[in-house]
Amino acid sequence: MTTTATTTATTTATALPRRVTIREVALRDGLQNEKPVALSAKLDLLAAIAATGVTEVEATAFVSPSKVPAMADAAEMAEALTSFPDIAFSALVASPNGARRAIAAGLNDVQFVVAATDEFSRANVGRSSAEAVAQIAEITAIAHDADTTVEVIVATSWDCPFAGPTPPSRVVDIAAAAREAGVDRLAIADTIGTTSPRRVSTLIDALRPVIADLPLGAHFHNTRGAGLASAYAAVTAGVTRLDASVGGLGGCPFAPGATGNIATEDLVYLLRDSGVDTGIDLDAAIHAADVARRVVDHDLPSALLRAGDRRRE
Amino acid sequence: MTTTATTTATTTATALPRRVTIREVALRDGLQNEKPVALSAKLDLLAAIAATGVTEVEATAFVSPSKVPAMADAAEMAEALTSFPDIAFSALVASPNGARRAIAAGLNDVQFVVAATDEFSRANVGRSSAEAVAQIAEITAIAHDADTTVEVIVATSWDCPFAGPTPPSRVVDIAAAAREAGVDRLAIADTIGTTSPRRVSTLIDALRPVIADLPLGAHFHNTRGAGLASAYAAVTAGVTRLDASVGGLGGCPFAPGATGNIATEDLVYLLRDSGVDTGIDLDAAIHAADVARRVVDHDLPSALLRAGDRRRE
Repeated sequence: MTTTATTTATTTATALPRRVTIREVALRDGLQNEKPVALSAKLDLLAAIAATGVTEVEATAFVSPSKVPAMADAAEMAEALTSFPDIAFSALVASPNGARRAIAAGLNDVQFVVAATDEFSRANVGRSSAEAVAQIAEITAIAHDADTTVEVIVATSWDCPFAGPTPPSRVVDIAAAAREAGVDRLAIADTIGTTSPRRVSTLIDALRPVIADLPLGAHFHNTRGAGLASAYAAVTAGVTRLDASVGGLGGCPFAPGATGNIATEDLVYLLRDSGVDTGIDLDAAIHAADVARRVVDHDLPSALLRAGDRRRE
Repeated sequence: MTTTATTTATTTATALPRRVTIREVALRDGLQNEKPVALSAKLDLLAAIAATGVTEVEATAFVSPSKVPAMADAAEMAEALTSFPDIAFSALVASPNGARRAIAAGLNDVQFVVAATDEFSRANVGRSSAEAVAQIAEITAIAHDADTTVEVIVATSWDCPFAGPTPPSRVVDIAAAAREAGVDRLAIADTIGTTSPRRVSTLIDALRPVIADLPLGAHFHNTRGAGLASAYAAVTAGVTRLDASVGGLGGCPFAPGATGNIATEDLVYLLRDSGVDTGIDLDAAIHAADVARRVVDHDLPSALLRAGDRRRE
């Protein structure tokens, strides 16, 4: 038998970055829509997360305790973070006042969510999208005065549960406003888990000229099964910051039936298999996912938590 | 606020085919490791699958009934297929005798599985990989004499549960042998659900010079969560034939904890969202997934079965 080569090999494999930073969001996005758990349980989960080698962790949210009871212990949580000096912690805020509270509690990195559609913005924070955009400069000033960095996360960057598809130009305009306001990073979020790799590439391509050298992150949910495919598309499009949560913990209150964020361990597996370093130990991430499952006391959608790592020769 | 564009937009979105053919494998790969279900239940599932608009269906397997009791009704199943003249049905075979049985039962398309590693081949069919490769020519002759097409599916194309990673050269050699033997199509299978998009692109690139214009398909399991990401990578690398099963039904007996094949409805969602036509109606596919769930009487891993389609404006 002979090998008959009649065409020339072409390379479809895309250039990948050598390293991607995963921000662990189980403690905030993961737990935010769960029945509130005790601070001690959160600290167990934090310890398991810290043991994975992760360098960035979204720890809590300084938002209305009546609206988000699961984050009512934000200040107590912030106190506990000082035990982990090797991790850069951040908190989500929804207003200038939230930013002040986060800074007072000792955080020096905040994320401000701006929804790309009025419908989602009003449902989420009672303000129009333009009103939220107008707050970026104020929050950035408050943060920078306190040596605190600011990331703007654009929620509903691809689809809104109320308004349907989001025009990419709307996300581009918010990105331009955020850059103009002097934020330190931008992130695009598939809040309800509906996007897919092609639209991810398209939006990132549209953002590039506007954001220039502003670091860009991406945040995906696996609600329609395409979360990891979208994350890989983002990485091939040059994104080097991805959010994920151990176990795939998390969901969106406006996305019925939603599974959670993309699972940290599934993302680490995929990236490791692609030769991309994350600095996260896969076995430790699977263990942290198991801790997360015990903390919330229900099954989690993570694939690796079920199947385990593959045999490695 | 002004939009400050300081760099030029670059396009990272890859060219995609306009159409991808999905072969529905729930009736064979999906059911093969389930407790055997009644023929009448299979026919309910077949009717639901036929209603999706799918044009290719793997209907059954002509293999040892003692080893695969779930496929013991292959001949009866084959009889029922004549009611669906618009669908091209195929059957899996594991030997020349299986091919003869499939043809006698009225099938005119057979898939012959050849494992890329000796370890898997011996565990699966009691023969070495080379011994299985040597049967390709005989099976192709039997099939072509009866106006029947032959596809060779290379099992464990990326990893073997016993031997670890499969050298791509091994898959390339099998592909060359299959082409030499005159088969009609080739497919690469991630039998235990361990591959990821980068390795998918790499293997397809390596195969191109050898297979030339031989149609190439790909078969993924979602065991580590990367099934859809791998499928999208295959499509961007030029593959236009993908296997999937409604509900994500199916698993591999040698992959403990395995979730099933990639779910037809999740794949249709992702491809539709990418502008790629599959000819499959998404609502009908979700309905077929629900029928599959009732047939096997347990939860299935499909994302769309849980979350439903997104709102479309």
